[in-house]
Amino acid sequence: MKTKAALALGAGKPLVIDEVDLEGPKEGEVMVEIKATGLCHTDWFTLSGDDPEGAFPAILGHEGAGIVVEVGPGVKSLKKGDHVIPLYTPECRECEYCLSRKTNLCQKIRTTQGQGVMPDGTSRFSYKGQKVLHYMGCSTFSNYTVLPEIALAKIREDAPFDKVCYIGCGVTTGVGAVINTAKVEIGANCVVFGLGGIGLNVIQGCRLAGANMIVGVDLNPARKALGEKFGMTHFVNPKDVQGDLVPYLVDLTKGGADYSFECIGNVKTMRQALECAHKGWGVSVIIGVAGAGQEISTRPFQLVTGRVWKGTAFGGARGRTDVPKIVDWYMDKKINIDDLITHTMPLQDINKGFELMKAGTSIRGVVIY
Amino acid sequence: MKTKAALALGAGKPLVIDEVDLEGPKEGEVMVEIKATGLCHTDWFTLSGDDPEGAFPAILGHEGAGIVVEVGPGVKSLKKGDHVIPLYTPECRECEYCLSRKTNLCQKIRTTQGQGVMPDGTSRFSYKGQKVLHYMGCSTFSNYTVLPEIALAKIREDAPFDKVCYIGCGVTTGVGAVINTAKVEIGANCVVFGLGGIGLNVIQGCRLAGANMIVGVDLNPARKALGEKFGMTHFVNPKDVQGDLVPYLVDLTKGGADYSFECIGNVKTMRQALECAHKGWGVSVIIGVAGAGQEISTRPFQLVTGRVWKGTAFGGARGRTDVPKIVDWYMDKKINIDDLITHTMPLQDINKGFELMKAGTSIRGVVIY
Repeated sequence: MKTKAALALGAGKPLVIDEVDLEGPKEGEVMVEIKATGLCHTDWFTLSGDDPEGAFPAILGHEGAGIVVEVGPGVKSLKKGDHVIPLYTPECRECEYCLSRKTNLCQKIRTTQGQGVMPDGTSRFSYKGQKVLHYMGCSTFSNYTVLPEIALAKIREDAPFDKVCYIGCGVTTGVGAVINTAKVEIGANCVVFGLGGIGLNVIQGCRLAGANMIVGVDLNPARKALGEKFGMTHFVNPKDVQGDLVPYLVDLTKGGADYSFECIGNVKTMRQALECAHKGWGVSVIIGVAGAGQEISTRPFQLVTGRVWKGTAFGGARGRTDVPKIVDWYMDKKINIDDLITHTMPLQDINKGFELMKAGTSIRGVVIY
Repeated sequence: MKTKAALALGAGKPLVIDEVDLEGPKEGEVMVEIKATGLCHTDWFTLSGDDPEGAFPAILGHEGAGIVVEVGPGVKSLKKGDHVIPLYTPECRECEYCLSRKTNLCQKIRTTQGQGVMPDGTSRFSYKGQKVLHYMGCSTFSNYTVLPEIALAKIREDAPFDKVCYIGCGVTTGVGAVINTAKVEIGANCVVFGLGGIGLNVIQGCRLAGANMIVGVDLNPARKALGEKFGMTHFVNPKDVQGDLVPYLVDLTKGGADYSFECIGNVKTMRQALECAHKGWGVSVIIGVAGAGQEISTRPFQLVTGRVWKGTAFGGARGRTDVPKIVDWYMDKKINIDDLITHTMPLQDINKGFELMKAGTSIRGVVIY
């Protein structure tokens, strides 16, 4: 069949909107009509050419929501008409990782997904007779796409696609980092570096967990009002701090953060996030993705005196299990997504959407098909 | 009163054995007759001059056992005749840290202890009319010493001083890192870097916790037989490994260590210990103390894909609570200390004891008064 898509034909080139060819779902696969998709920094990172694993031509996009239109042989947990969110971190519930109960990093289809193909090693997309790669197992910048059954979370049917698509990445990554990875408890003091699409979700995760101080750190003063809307109690602009940021944050939190979160992808702020954590028990969680080859460092004394350095991917969430719950939280107004989606656009304006993101004008831009 | 002691008069100089003057215990203080004391790398680190916080003249030693000979006013938990182990990490049970239930790093007397004085800001030791500093709040290289009540663990009276003194540092640090910090569970695969006085205790901690594979890594082939005696299941000498050590250890443990421990104090092996931990859930614990100013580094991807980097001091043990339990484990033959104490000596031979340690000939040398 034919479907409209935004094609990434090469690194650094604008996306091309055109019709592509899509094969139907094979064994264990599902075809989904994407109704809405968010634009995430990770898509941009790959499109820019900075992602060492980026490959072209491909159909990017990994933050979508839609409706099942066809299921392949053997698919049991989904049927035509089901509402779904694609999962770039699948949940097979049978690999060593899923069964460990210690991680969300299902490894069942990791290799093929990383290569931009379906688990059988082939792509369902082609353009003018040439194979086009899938991206992060999702390719939500195509109106129709095919995914493995294990990479789809079934969600309630009254949830609006143009909002809950954001749960496919940013919301779950931020809220999940707080709940699943850091396990923030009532009364904790938290520091969040970077108040963008992830950081603001960390902030509302901290609020949801009953944190005491929720300190947001950002160079953009416009993020103060927005952060406060999501539960931030203190805003720190490093430009306004006299002297070093770390002792300032340690003082502000009366000894250091019980939990700190790095949502920027900068190895320097990763170190600051660790070092502003409380001696004895502070936990620092890396969420941001650093550039290829960059390294974090600190003195081992920081760890020996009780700080813990960890990281998280997809907020530690097991997608098929946890994503439907987060959709419920949104529908129950426990979390705010509406105020994070600052711009919507049709697919043909997707390149403009990325411009808004790069300029820092948008928190989240969403393409509505 | 007069007491025999080994004096550290300056960085890099041999200890001087002589009589020193010792004042009696003041409010909240206890005088202890030290019966035996271990020689630890940390004492040597300070004596060598490499410790940036080292100050002289001082009486070193922090791994002792002895008998209470006098208590000062207000001391409630100890009386003359009690058998005790000095604690360089005290346990006041009333500071924010003790009450947090999240750390063993009692802060009650940290500042004065770091300055080499008692909590009232003065020293009890003097030599030829000149003040001599305490060390790590213990100074077990003196036959008699004075400590705060909160820095003494009361132990059973049938435990031999010349063995359980080692519980004052090395045993508790190694076994505690496994039990309190890593919380190793039955069936876990563990990798231990450095099979010295700490590493061998980590090994027996892993055995005690019911670990599956217990892999020891050391450049000294003589440590194979010794490690096996303590429960090591696999020995890896990096000199014998073709190619990189990290992938070798990941293969050996079928995916990586559930828990890894660095017991050397080398920032390169700290990185290897982290990176040989299992994707998704591996926890790496730094126990070794690195040289001043040295830093650890890794790619943040290591943490984002689920590895956790932490550290431990005094094995995460709360001394007054946990040390008596470890003494019980020794008396019940659950842990082996005897085979770790390879050399004993009188105080006058303490400098020879350090020579044996530096040469790698001894695991633990113990001075018996």
